Amino acid sequence: MIYADNAATTKLDEDALKAMLPYLTNEYANASQPYTFARKAKKAMKEARETVAKCINAKPNEILFTSGGTESDNWAIKNGFSEEKNEVVTSQIEHHAILNSCSSLERLGNKTIYLPVDKDGVVDILSLKKSMNDRTRLVSIMLANNEIGTIEPIEIYSEIVHKQHILFHTDAVQAIGHIPVDVKQLGVDLLSASSHKFNGPRGIGFLYVKEGTPLEPFINGGAQESHMRAGTENLAGIVGMAVALEKNVAYMAENTSKLKKLEEIILYILNDKKITFVRNGSQYRLPGNLSLSFKGKEGEMLLHRLDIKGICVSTGSACDSQNTQISHVLKAIHLDEQFALGTIRISLGKNNTEDDAKQIAYSLVNILKK
Amino acid sequence: MIYADNAATTKLDEDALKAMLPYLTNEYANASQPYTFARKAKKAMKEARETVAKCINAKPNEILFTSGGTESDNWAIKNGFSEEKNEVVTSQIEHHAILNSCSSLERLGNKTIYLPVDKDGVVDILSLKKSMNDRTRLVSIMLANNEIGTIEPIEIYSEIVHKQHILFHTDAVQAIGHIPVDVKQLGVDLLSASSHKFNGPRGIGFLYVKEGTPLEPFINGGAQESHMRAGTENLAGIVGMAVALEKNVAYMAENTSKLKKLEEIILYILNDKKITFVRNGSQYRLPGNLSLSFKGKEGEMLLHRLDIKGICVSTGSACDSQNTQISHVLKAIHLDEQFALGTIRISLGKNNTEDDAKQIAYSLVNILKK
Repeated sequence: MIYADNAATTKLDEDALKAMLPYLTNEYANASQPYTFARKAKKAMKEARETVAKCINAKPNEILFTSGGTESDNWAIKNGFSEEKNEVVTSQIEHHAILNSCSSLERLGNKTIYLPVDKDGVVDILSLKKSMNDRTRLVSIMLANNEIGTIEPIEIYSEIVHKQHILFHTDAVQAIGHIPVDVKQLGVDLLSASSHKFNGPRGIGFLYVKEGTPLEPFINGGAQESHMRAGTENLAGIVGMAVALEKNVAYMAENTSKLKKLEEIILYILNDKKITFVRNGSQYRLPGNLSLSFKGKEGEMLLHRLDIKGICVSTGSACDSQNTQISHVLKAIHLDEQFALGTIRISLGKNNTEDDAKQIAYSLVNILKK
Repeated sequence: MIYADNAATTKLDEDALKAMLPYLTNEYANASQPYTFARKAKKAMKEARETVAKCINAKPNEILFTSGGTESDNWAIKNGFSEEKNEVVTSQIEHHAILNSCSSLERLGNKTIYLPVDKDGVVDILSLKKSMNDRTRLVSIMLANNEIGTIEPIEIYSEIVHKQHILFHTDAVQAIGHIPVDVKQLGVDLLSASSHKFNGPRGIGFLYVKEGTPLEPFINGGAQESHMRAGTENLAGIVGMAVALEKNVAYMAENTSKLKKLEEIILYILNDKKITFVRNGSQYRLPGNLSLSFKGKEGEMLLHRLDIKGICVSTGSACDSQNTQISHVLKAIHLDEQFALGTIRISLGKNNTEDDAKQIAYSLVNILKK
């Protein structure tokens, strides 16, 4: 089996699992309790928070653990709207965690402005500038697109937005652990991340909240996470996430150059065999992302034929590979329908090999030439 | 070390961990993907949902997985309020996940009515009957109290509430896996549960939603959980929760009789040694729960002296053992302040032994006689 759907989810890193196991067995104390048995748990929580913070150049108290990227996105989007401040600006190519959070607020009388993107998936800066007004409470633009891999120039957007004294959030779920993320350099107030996208466990993620950023709790209850996110801490998940992130960041250069090579192998073979396709996304894209559109083909058919050959890829978006409609992302980049319908996303990860790349390419050639 | 804080969190069951491991290693497919590799994950999700449903006499499609009891409580409380329906009725002794969710809605112009309880912690039925009106959208009363262990007669409350055509929710976080829970018999529309309270992993729980109950998603995004709870499924957590619940339910009678015996050992020794104390809660209480109040003592002092002897217990409530104030629960049952300040909660679990019980009791005697 060749797994090339790493943008959907990744295999848990072995070192991350190893680090988790004590907290799934003997070190089961609730990290919020005051007795001696909870000391090791408390220390592990503290160190994990420091590790995660360091990986994105944040302070430990700016990291709030959540159940994942989707919760983080919901929290950021649904935070602090009022009758006076009831507009959110976002892009047409965001993940559904952002888009559907916006929709849910629209039903409560809020307004969302969806910024257009160019053919590469880059947000239109003029539209961004014109989108903001006195009612705008937040601008949220993703760091890297989950489908076509385009990396947005967040530092430019955040500067424009901050000139209007408006908060800026980025959904960095697909980016963290794969490209350098420095919250200071990006200039963001809020940033969402999900552990399982960077070889950490599922069910855990975080929201970066720049010191001083006004934020209301989204999940109320106990005093965990400095009274900002209630619920007994998922310590094993937190520890696993920190180890996975630290490792992916440490090996980022190495992983990236390997993934770029694997991409080239696939593209070379497809071109060599005279396959007609377009590659979606901008030049600045996530390593290992290949959103390929084959003219006159059907993405779902390609997915299933690859599956028969033991290769896992996606059509459309990560979270919804079960339908053949053209995804909102491909619509937003105005991809010709004849190509759009024949789109698959190959997302390579650190465990993939050159042999994997060759097999994926030759299998595709084989299917497409029939 | 003797762990007697099982109401705060429990040790993960070994069989639950064993069941989780494949999904933390080789079976890492995203359960929502359409390829063959995801089939085992999909099947495991389906079976876990069936198991959980069976344990509470629900249908599988009535179980929605969440990140834990706190999220489930937030979801139930914050669901579907409007200008016309903006009142929630709850009790004075609920968990903070309920109380603080209500407070957060109050800031948005909602109203909460907090029902009083008697000295045993049982909700006043006359107050419940008088509390509802045309604006009432939900009544939420916990199944068992986390601090004093009182089990509420939910089936009586739900019948009263349903006569007014109002939805009924119960926070069953502390009860599930420890006392029989049958949603049909209880007559509830919504029920919250948390895995780590019944020897499952942390970061996972569920909301039972009776078929036909109107419910809006709380966390928006992808199509997971029948479009009701977005976010890549925490499959290892889900599988572990199901195994832990099934096992606790299977051994419930056995565990309960053992725990009752351990309680008796502790009470016998304290009485035998002429210690003055009151035991809080009603006669119908969670097995293993001993909320004991010692006149003229300080709960925090007792906790720390027990800690020195290697025994873990709580003061006040599970989630906030760091302060010596009288908890909202002890205030609500009007416990004499001289006793209330000297309260500890010993919560025994299935791993505790008779020797543990004796050691806890003799250690307490030793501390109190000094």
